[in-house]
Amino acid sequence: MDTYTIPPFDEDAARAARARQDRLTKPTGSLGRLEDLAVQLAGMTGQALPDIEPPVIFVYAADHGVAVRGVSAYPPEVTAQMVLNFARGGAVINALAGQLGTALVVADVGVAADFPPDLPIRHCKVRRGTGDWTEGPAMTGDEAREAVAVGTRLFAEAGAVGVCLVGEMGIGNTTTASALAAALLGIDPARLVGRGTGVDAAGVERKLSVIRLGVARHGSPIDAWETLAALGGLEIAAMAGTILAAAGARVPILLDGFIATAAALVAAGIDPGVRPFLIAAHRSPEPGHGVLLEHLGLTPLLDLGLRLGEASGAALALPLLRLAVAVHRETATFESAGVSDRG
Amino acid sequence: MDTYTIPPFDEDAARAARARQDRLTKPTGSLGRLEDLAVQLAGMTGQALPDIEPPVIFVYAADHGVAVRGVSAYPPEVTAQMVLNFARGGAVINALAGQLGTALVVADVGVAADFPPDLPIRHCKVRRGTGDWTEGPAMTGDEAREAVAVGTRLFAEAGAVGVCLVGEMGIGNTTTASALAAALLGIDPARLVGRGTGVDAAGVERKLSVIRLGVARHGSPIDAWETLAALGGLEIAAMAGTILAAAGARVPILLDGFIATAAALVAAGIDPGVRPFLIAAHRSPEPGHGVLLEHLGLTPLLDLGLRLGEASGAALALPLLRLAVAVHRETATFESAGVSDRG
Repeated sequence: MDTYTIPPFDEDAARAARARQDRLTKPTGSLGRLEDLAVQLAGMTGQALPDIEPPVIFVYAADHGVAVRGVSAYPPEVTAQMVLNFARGGAVINALAGQLGTALVVADVGVAADFPPDLPIRHCKVRRGTGDWTEGPAMTGDEAREAVAVGTRLFAEAGAVGVCLVGEMGIGNTTTASALAAALLGIDPARLVGRGTGVDAAGVERKLSVIRLGVARHGSPIDAWETLAALGGLEIAAMAGTILAAAGARVPILLDGFIATAAALVAAGIDPGVRPFLIAAHRSPEPGHGVLLEHLGLTPLLDLGLRLGEASGAALALPLLRLAVAVHRETATFESAGVSDRG
Repeated sequence: MDTYTIPPFDEDAARAARARQDRLTKPTGSLGRLEDLAVQLAGMTGQALPDIEPPVIFVYAADHGVAVRGVSAYPPEVTAQMVLNFARGGAVINALAGQLGTALVVADVGVAADFPPDLPIRHCKVRRGTGDWTEGPAMTGDEAREAVAVGTRLFAEAGAVGVCLVGEMGIGNTTTASALAAALLGIDPARLVGRGTGVDAAGVERKLSVIRLGVARHGSPIDAWETLAALGGLEIAAMAGTILAAAGARVPILLDGFIATAAALVAAGIDPGVRPFLIAAHRSPEPGHGVLLEHLGLTPLLDLGLRLGEASGAALALPLLRLAVAVHRETATFESAGVSDRG
């Protein structure tokens, strides 16, 4: 975990990109966020004409001991069933990756089931689900480091990555993400908790009391590593690892929803240098997402009521990055096109 | 113009699509707007598994007599310069169409300049710019019908169109669109007027007084055709024609920003049957856009501060439609994937 150093955002490349944007044959600023995106991607990659090909989608799956407490609308075995669905190409993210022509890496970091070794996923199980963090730590400190290392290793093994999309699958993980965020930010969990992928009002109350119990049990952890071990998830740890590795390689990171943003919060707790490399794909209806986005200073690209996970929101936002880069690279300048700028 | 009949939205296809969405391996509703989009596209096309390939982008260009009144930050000759830029592939929409792999039809419907006949655009000039509608009608009734017919003809000549993107280029056309909308909706132009592609506060005041002058001069036109002739633009008329023809062919229409939405308002005034076939790509910062969207009952997909025109906002939203369709067609169902639905 000490083998990378995160470089700073490249202000020179960003400035050069902004200057280019202002010379393209369009009124200055008329492409709004799309112009800012091109400039951000330049600063992240250190290239005034950034290249974000090829994108790679990372989906990490793991189970949560706390799921036994009835915090999800779905039974815990759905995590394993969905991993099989990913492997067979039947999930939403498979359809999205196919349409986008994008590589998809699916990894078992801690599903509480055994998969056939020939299942076409990455087999990186650290343990069979976390412990129920209302009763003890979710995992040991060593396991937390090992799960983060899965994320850094899979990023490295993916080879060329132009932009990195991170997402997850884990029944119960909005509850874990809320507990993690409440502990890391020192805020009342009531500000964070919502319906997840579909619990009712009573379910929301149950989630909230479970989170309060967990946060109370683990006191005030001293740092992001300790919080991750106490209240985290294995897929969240792996996402944090991929985020750290991507930032270390100057690769822009397109975050999926609430859980992925909680992983970014963990990564930023481990190394604040990741922050300039983060892009929020969308705003989830989960109340905690807005809190985390604000804390990280991120403005999401989409707001479409997405609350699926599995990197689906990141995939939906990827075309905006590609189109921002295409406009930035290919549009003619006022001088080259013989078009009059404003009078 | 009486050669088409607009069919109704196909409620059966929409219902079948919704039933399918609810069986896909994701929590019901977890893809938010994306699910609604798939259902809408089914109802528009009349196919429970809609196909929206190939998309075709239509960009109509024309000049505005009212531009002499200093309502734009750019000189009028920029309309012709940008048509040359489109023809050479140097504009933002060319970069977007290239990245999207989408056909682009650029047509001169009324630019106040002569183009070489071999310029690779559609040459459909109805007249050299509209008249200044503060002093007289923008065009005759016959010219309005001719410009609308350009839009219906070019749609028909495009051959197979799976989804139709409409946009425009015309210096001064936010002013024209505001005047048209104020007259059609009978509302105070002050509710509509903003910065366009970049005028300052004094420019906004100038635009507003020009619009008030135009609306006052032309009294209360009796219908959409008369309003179009009095206060319209030739590219707006052509967009309305393409919208009418696309709806007549059950082809979903992805509207660009304020000007294209004003064209949709004209089309809906000519035939209200177009309404169920409209999709708003984005919300422009131009205040009038929000008013028109509300009037047409449209909720935009993107909100990225786009105010360029030339169908750029529609192009940026196209991937969301394609991804909605891919998810709808390709995701496995709970039964086929052996995944447990909620308990």
